[in-house]
Amino acid sequence: MSAWVLPDHIADVLPSEARHIEELRRDLLDAARCYGYELVMPPLLEHLESLLTGAGVALDLQTFKLVDQLSGRMMGLRADSTPQVARIDAHLLNRSGVTRLCYCGPVLHTLPGAPHATREPLQFGAEIYGHAGLEADIEILTLALDCLKAAKLENPSVDLADARLVKSMLSGLSLGSAQLAALYAALAAKDSPELTALTRDLPAHIRQGLLTLVQLYGDASVLDEAQKALPPLPGVAEALQNLKQLAGQLSGVQVTFDLADLQGYAYYTGARFAIYAPGGSGALARGGRYDQVGAVFGRNRPAAGFSLDIKTLVSAVAARPLQAAIRAPWRQEPRLAAAITTLRAQGEVVVCVLPGHESEVDEFHCDRVLVESAGQWLVQTI
Amino acid sequence: MSAWVLPDHIADVLPSEARHIEELRRDLLDAARCYGYELVMPPLLEHLESLLTGAGVALDLQTFKLVDQLSGRMMGLRADSTPQVARIDAHLLNRSGVTRLCYCGPVLHTLPGAPHATREPLQFGAEIYGHAGLEADIEILTLALDCLKAAKLENPSVDLADARLVKSMLSGLSLGSAQLAALYAALAAKDSPELTALTRDLPAHIRQGLLTLVQLYGDASVLDEAQKALPPLPGVAEALQNLKQLAGQLSGVQVTFDLADLQGYAYYTGARFAIYAPGGSGALARGGRYDQVGAVFGRNRPAAGFSLDIKTLVSAVAARPLQAAIRAPWRQEPRLAAAITTLRAQGEVVVCVLPGHESEVDEFHCDRVLVESAGQWLVQTI
Repeated sequence: MSAWVLPDHIADVLPSEARHIEELRRDLLDAARCYGYELVMPPLLEHLESLLTGAGVALDLQTFKLVDQLSGRMMGLRADSTPQVARIDAHLLNRSGVTRLCYCGPVLHTLPGAPHATREPLQFGAEIYGHAGLEADIEILTLALDCLKAAKLENPSVDLADARLVKSMLSGLSLGSAQLAALYAALAAKDSPELTALTRDLPAHIRQGLLTLVQLYGDASVLDEAQKALPPLPGVAEALQNLKQLAGQLSGVQVTFDLADLQGYAYYTGARFAIYAPGGSGALARGGRYDQVGAVFGRNRPAAGFSLDIKTLVSAVAARPLQAAIRAPWRQEPRLAAAITTLRAQGEVVVCVLPGHESEVDEFHCDRVLVESAGQWLVQTI
Repeated sequence: MSAWVLPDHIADVLPSEARHIEELRRDLLDAARCYGYELVMPPLLEHLESLLTGAGVALDLQTFKLVDQLSGRMMGLRADSTPQVARIDAHLLNRSGVTRLCYCGPVLHTLPGAPHATREPLQFGAEIYGHAGLEADIEILTLALDCLKAAKLENPSVDLADARLVKSMLSGLSLGSAQLAALYAALAAKDSPELTALTRDLPAHIRQGLLTLVQLYGDASVLDEAQKALPPLPGVAEALQNLKQLAGQLSGVQVTFDLADLQGYAYYTGARFAIYAPGGSGALARGGRYDQVGAVFGRNRPAAGFSLDIKTLVSAVAARPLQAAIRAPWRQEPRLAAAITTLRAQGEVVVCVLPGHESEVDEFHCDRVLVESAGQWLVQTI
């Protein structure tokens, strides 16, 4: 086994892609900062119970575990930064008002999330705490779209759903956890026959609502259909109203609805969204409202947020042009050194050709060269 | 045990420090890019033998190990990125000419390197491959100093040493590994009595050279003393000549020498440097020549480089002023939205005050506010 072979679903990022990822990273963090989101950097390693308390089984299976030599306790490598940022809001900042936070860093997964997925995504995200109203949902969705615009993603489409639809319909029923899991699975698979069988003993209006729900995907007309066909529960009405308001914020973006979408249902407590590239199969960004996210840290604040993987995003947007560089000779001469320093201070890349390497092809695209002319160092086009 | 308690020597980075770290990160990467160093992003996880082949025992003890569920093999979390970047130079890029690479990302240590050290440094570094001449050493040292200048470190001092001094004197002697280790330990501790005992059976000129070496620290006069007192071996002469040339490059920087300094002796093969903040006890940056670094990956190219921990650096430089923000009301109005978008595109932070939170104290320092006046939205100083 060669020392340079990497584990499956783990890869080096080489220069041209690394530069693009770094630019995206900056663009996304700058977009969040312009909205007033403050950067935090939670650690890669935490005690396992901090990472997993309140989280689902899925996150547990995704999390690498190791032993802390200092304490003998189990630690985990974060597989998702969202619970960490909720912990920071709850305990370190402990502010009473609205708190806006963003983050960007690697997360690690024991197993790839999809056949070609990396096990080391570069997760970027933003969270707003302390405001239960739809304004926070709107801000998060707008910010997510602005981030993708900053990344130069063209023609994104937004898919909207709301965790309250199914939750409202099932609340008040005494269902066993196995039956609940089967129901969620049938809804997620849009499996009407299975759903018909599973809902046999449920109240007729709930049963009809659930069976209708799996048909409710498509354009905005879905909301009108839902208003007519779903049971008139308060949670259902509020969810539909919120979805209509959210969709109203989105101009110039294709909006679809999938009211039975249960992606992350254990997590979201209100409206949720997924943003896609044109023709893309997987969502580039996911977000929504998850009001319970800080509860396990003793502080149950309203929360909404979104996250995305920059390594996935980079392959969905067009490559950026290479920055052209200036080639300079290697010489110990103060005026040459001064000329190079000035150019670099202007943001130019100046590559000094080391002695003996003059004939090498530059990996950097050098379109200019520093030449001496009458005692002056001047930039000349090649 | 509370879910929000972090493991020892692991910490969250909160907004003001996180912003400073992010700015340093960008400044350092930009400084390296201006020199023509291409960014690469090696993974956090690799097969253990890739991370540790050719590395010393110290790195092995520092490396967290875990099992890959996909392959059943042992993986390690990188404790140092330098061997990874050497692997990338050797195999992925496989260029014949000069290659300049830089990187920035977290590394993890099983145990803290010092009493107050973090176990999750944010390592930044730059490496130049393919040039054996001193020009590469000079470029790396100059770049390291430029990076610290970009970080706004004031009055750094540089400590120079050379791994060839001790290696040349000991080469050709048949010493057991235990004796060698004891010799290195005595040299590192500048323990003359112990060294006197350990060198009893060595040739007189070597013995005298080693005993002199532990006295050779201080300003540039040390080099002249060394020239007189150390045995006239080719490696010794070359090392002293190189150190003189390197020191000659450093204007406006305090330069000291410590010719018996053995920090990283297993690693370095030539000149090496450490950069300190005024009054600082630990080095902020370390670098030098390590020509064998790519050998275990089958490609023994000349190499020089340096690295530093941004989390250490941030506490050695003055805090940067907070960016002031503009407060805006929350209102669904196209002209307000347009004014906010324009300000954000100019790089301004505009924080929308969500309904019901008007009286909250902003964590962002808002020194201006967007107000409506005669149908126009204008920025007004508070």
